[in-house]
Amino acid sequence: MGGDNGISVTVPAAVRFAHRIADVHFLLVGDETKIKKSLNHSKPRDPNQFEIIPCNEVITGEDAVESALRHKKGSTMHVAIKLVSEQKADACISAGNTGALMAISRLILKTLDGIKRPAIASAIPNISGGGTYVLDLGANVDCTPQHLQQFAIMGTALVQAIEEIDNPTLGLLNIGHETHKGNDVVRKTYSLLQESGLNFIGNVEGDDIFKSKCNVVVCDGFVGNVMLKTSEGLAKMISQKLKKRFLHSFFTKLIAFIAKPVLSKFKEEVDNRRYNGAVFLGLKGVVVKSHGSADSLAFKHAIYKAYSAIKFDILNKISVKVGELQSTEVSEQISNNTEHA
Amino acid sequence: MGGDNGISVTVPAAVRFAHRIADVHFLLVGDETKIKKSLNHSKPRDPNQFEIIPCNEVITGEDAVESALRHKKGSTMHVAIKLVSEQKADACISAGNTGALMAISRLILKTLDGIKRPAIASAIPNISGGGTYVLDLGANVDCTPQHLQQFAIMGTALVQAIEEIDNPTLGLLNIGHETHKGNDVVRKTYSLLQESGLNFIGNVEGDDIFKSKCNVVVCDGFVGNVMLKTSEGLAKMISQKLKKRFLHSFFTKLIAFIAKPVLSKFKEEVDNRRYNGAVFLGLKGVVVKSHGSADSLAFKHAIYKAYSAIKFDILNKISVKVGELQSTEVSEQISNNTEHA
Repeated sequence: MGGDNGISVTVPAAVRFAHRIADVHFLLVGDETKIKKSLNHSKPRDPNQFEIIPCNEVITGEDAVESALRHKKGSTMHVAIKLVSEQKADACISAGNTGALMAISRLILKTLDGIKRPAIASAIPNISGGGTYVLDLGANVDCTPQHLQQFAIMGTALVQAIEEIDNPTLGLLNIGHETHKGNDVVRKTYSLLQESGLNFIGNVEGDDIFKSKCNVVVCDGFVGNVMLKTSEGLAKMISQKLKKRFLHSFFTKLIAFIAKPVLSKFKEEVDNRRYNGAVFLGLKGVVVKSHGSADSLAFKHAIYKAYSAIKFDILNKISVKVGELQSTEVSEQISNNTEHA
Repeated sequence: MGGDNGISVTVPAAVRFAHRIADVHFLLVGDETKIKKSLNHSKPRDPNQFEIIPCNEVITGEDAVESALRHKKGSTMHVAIKLVSEQKADACISAGNTGALMAISRLILKTLDGIKRPAIASAIPNISGGGTYVLDLGANVDCTPQHLQQFAIMGTALVQAIEEIDNPTLGLLNIGHETHKGNDVVRKTYSLLQESGLNFIGNVEGDDIFKSKCNVVVCDGFVGNVMLKTSEGLAKMISQKLKKRFLHSFFTKLIAFIAKPVLSKFKEEVDNRRYNGAVFLGLKGVVVKSHGSADSLAFKHAIYKAYSAIKFDILNKISVKVGELQSTEVSEQISNNTEHA
């Protein structure tokens, strides 16, 4: 039901996805009448791939997280995430209120054993035509080096799952490439990542995200959120200015008509719809958040992210890697203590 | 001598500036022979506006800040900043190593009385065709609410000086507009700014910088630096992709030729050269850092920033406002202590 366009986007996206992937089964949580109508309209190939879970309570974008948690316990978000916790669904995908979705996910699903904090990860289009995955994008405003190390593990597993890259490269977002740069948390994280066994390439700067320097970039949620919104704001401003220039007069509109094939190709290339879908990592279940303004093509890509995460068994892979690192830390502590004794 | 192009940019820029502004006098610090040659080539209207201060030791972009401070005490940067501290110059403008320039400025000039930390401020082009001034852009990786409050005062004074806006609006960079958003430092800063007497409009997000929501945006140097470099990286990627599209084939090149008037206007509009010049605020002297890749037009704008700061008597205005706020704080503390007694 969520996002700017609700069912008119989410249902057709699910139908389009099911067209291509036969082994998927959708539980559509929301207003039964509206979903039925949209389903009929979208003409699914196999109607058995869809089941409606009727629910009429909806969390809006304006609802504060606290009140959504307390006063809307029967909301579509609660119901959908409960389906995951009861193993009736493998993943939950929503275009709704990000804060509420994360809070309800944490409440119902809990974090994976050993994971201190869940994080939000998404891909940013880069110059190579691919995407650079960045996390955390806003779930955690204060992070310790240990949190950031866990984000690195989770981000690596995510890229392995979705991009099918064996050993993704990892960068630490900083204000310079040199080892000594940044604040205390970032410097300590640098050391932890060097010892983590991950494919760590060192510090990266804001512009490196677009240069395809590495597959995963780790940062705290404050910095990540500012970075993401800055990128969205700048891209929007540039496209508005370009559009305005071409719509300036009859003459420029004529030029726009002639240049259309080039401009369309350009638009396609900087189109970020195929990167839609921020993955909530570190929970006992897969939750994917679509951009609120997503159309059905973009929402289909968010579904694809959830599907890949499940197929790759991402939760298990994260647990194993976190477990490995923790046992190394514990054994190091024991040996340190023995030395001191 | 600094930046990617050294004297071939800085000297012609100074000559162009002196063409328009009669009451400026330049002390050109660097290689005497080269400067003389460049001066002759640039044909100044009034040669008396220029004086050469011979100096052959140069700090490069590769020099570590520590070694620049210790082993290059006779560098052009040292000499130029000393001219400011000895009141032989009103401002120093450089396109060289940012870290070294800040460190040498702090060492020689010291901070203004009452100012805890100097900050780097620059304008980011926004949708209105103007610029949003953001600070700190990288001088301080860890900030207290008091530091951020002082940045707000200094940024406000800078916009008053350069943009000639009486009462500039001020935003606090955060990850949401709501009062409770962000980390502890940002929330405490929010309260301080509310009581500061500045024209504080509340929290702003990364995309608001481009929406012309306020004149000044305050953040810590880590976040500001990531924001700045992200913007530079994204803008570069988009322009590369647009260029590549138009250079794709003979046909697209033909379209580019036809679309040239529109594309040139667009390029002019997103041209950030007129925003060149990051101002180091909070020091006992005006220091302006030009982008290393600046051409002479861009460098001329950096000179203009220094000129405006001097004309507006920015150092004095910052001192007065900081003094006012401190005396308020002291009197509040006294009245609090009296209440508790």
